[in-house]
Amino acid sequence: MQTPFAAAVTERTRTLNTRLCVGLDPRLSEYQDAAHLRQHTLDVLEATAPYAAAVKPQLAFYEALGLEGMQILEEVCAAARLLGLPVILDAKRGDIGSTAEAYAQGWLTGRHAGAALTVNPFLGFQTLQPFVQAARENGGGVFVLVKTSNPDQADLQGEGRGGTSISERVAAEVARLGAEEDGEYASVGAVVGATHPADLPHFRALMPRALLLLPGLGAQGAKASDLAGAFHAGGTGALVSASRGVQYAAGLDVAAARTAARDFRDELNAALQ
Amino acid sequence: MQTPFAAAVTERTRTLNTRLCVGLDPRLSEYQDAAHLRQHTLDVLEATAPYAAAVKPQLAFYEALGLEGMQILEEVCAAARLLGLPVILDAKRGDIGSTAEAYAQGWLTGRHAGAALTVNPFLGFQTLQPFVQAARENGGGVFVLVKTSNPDQADLQGEGRGGTSISERVAAEVARLGAEEDGEYASVGAVVGATHPADLPHFRALMPRALLLLPGLGAQGAKASDLAGAFHAGGTGALVSASRGVQYAAGLDVAAARTAARDFRDELNAALQ
Repeated sequence: MQTPFAAAVTERTRTLNTRLCVGLDPRLSEYQDAAHLRQHTLDVLEATAPYAAAVKPQLAFYEALGLEGMQILEEVCAAARLLGLPVILDAKRGDIGSTAEAYAQGWLTGRHAGAALTVNPFLGFQTLQPFVQAARENGGGVFVLVKTSNPDQADLQGEGRGGTSISERVAAEVARLGAEEDGEYASVGAVVGATHPADLPHFRALMPRALLLLPGLGAQGAKASDLAGAFHAGGTGALVSASRGVQYAAGLDVAAARTAARDFRDELNAALQ
Repeated sequence: MQTPFAAAVTERTRTLNTRLCVGLDPRLSEYQDAAHLRQHTLDVLEATAPYAAAVKPQLAFYEALGLEGMQILEEVCAAARLLGLPVILDAKRGDIGSTAEAYAQGWLTGRHAGAALTVNPFLGFQTLQPFVQAARENGGGVFVLVKTSNPDQADLQGEGRGGTSISERVAAEVARLGAEEDGEYASVGAVVGATHPADLPHFRALMPRALLLLPGLGAQGAKASDLAGAFHAGGTGALVSASRGVQYAAGLDVAAARTAARDFRDELNAALQ
């Protein structure tokens, strides 16, 4: 089996000195047509790979293009594999029983073995099991939504009973799942918005063996300099994703996307000094 | 514009005297190959349509088959449209901002205009807006997860602050959105598990203008005779879905699937007497 997802990300962070996750969220409105979208997205992937610890296609944008978009998604994933770049499928899937098993089969096995998937825990902790099992068996990963980057996350992720927030309850389950595994980082990670910098040390401590995925850098207003609390000493344990700020840097100039990725990488590294 | 989703379902309930939603969740393990799966699924759709108020493909099972599965899903949706059968895309999507907009574009507009989509509210109430807007503009519908049918739903849908459950908070938002619309039923409905029969009158009262979608009949143990509390006087306002119990009735015998759908329809009608 190839290096499991969490180990592959961490190895890449150490080797290439990068904590950046490049988000690939192609919006048809930015392009002449789907062929243009496809080529530019693949070009951005290749151009930014040297500065990326992982790449994160957001499935919504591919689904919005119908079957043609799903074909492009498969091409993006195949290209990332050829580049040796770990893939996070940002799909936020979640369902019960055999339905969760079907999602896990579709996105964490076969041609997607070794990839990671974002999952939504709202349906219950038992519903995470098929995803976790598929990730473990196929060298992949799972990122459970713990505290999302949007301001209205508090509606259902905020205060719960007994002074523990819903986000903290999910974090405890992520930690419990992580403790079942060996290795530096477990296959079960967590999504914590980069837009909540003051919370990062707390969630870092609650989930000691989880890779944290921090969305919100750039377009959503989070700053690299605020994110040190998400990392362990040595600068591992977290990935910070930027999407629009890379893919659409200076319009559709691929060289600008490359520069933007390098700059985000450098800003994150500077924050860890 | 065609009859909006909620009105089409209600009209069908009244005309055909049915509250059944036929779930189409094709599992490859049950078939010789994908071609067999495709044909049987389309055959079950056609055979059960006279007894169905709506049809509900569960996207996980199509995604598990990769691009070929997504092609089959489009064929199922096209066939349902030809039969005049309202379609509920059971995808449980949920994301923020422009990502939610992309999901809504993919599943509630264009070739899927007039369909309904199940959505997960965990990311926050504002994240429901793009789905609701797309549904309203395209004559479609949204079913927000309020209380799912699985036993572990209480992990994150249960008790919240101040004695109000998380499910009740979501129900209040569904009611608020429904009150913004005219018409007998709003475009914003709710998923409430048929496995919680004692809760049905409460959720029915909390969301007076929402269509309720009740999964769990058959394989998950819910009984038609327990579900009267989900309906308004006159027997409208809810759809009860059965999947495995229809599609795999007596193996892969399409006539048996037809009989199973008719029997579920009759059991639901008997419960309303």
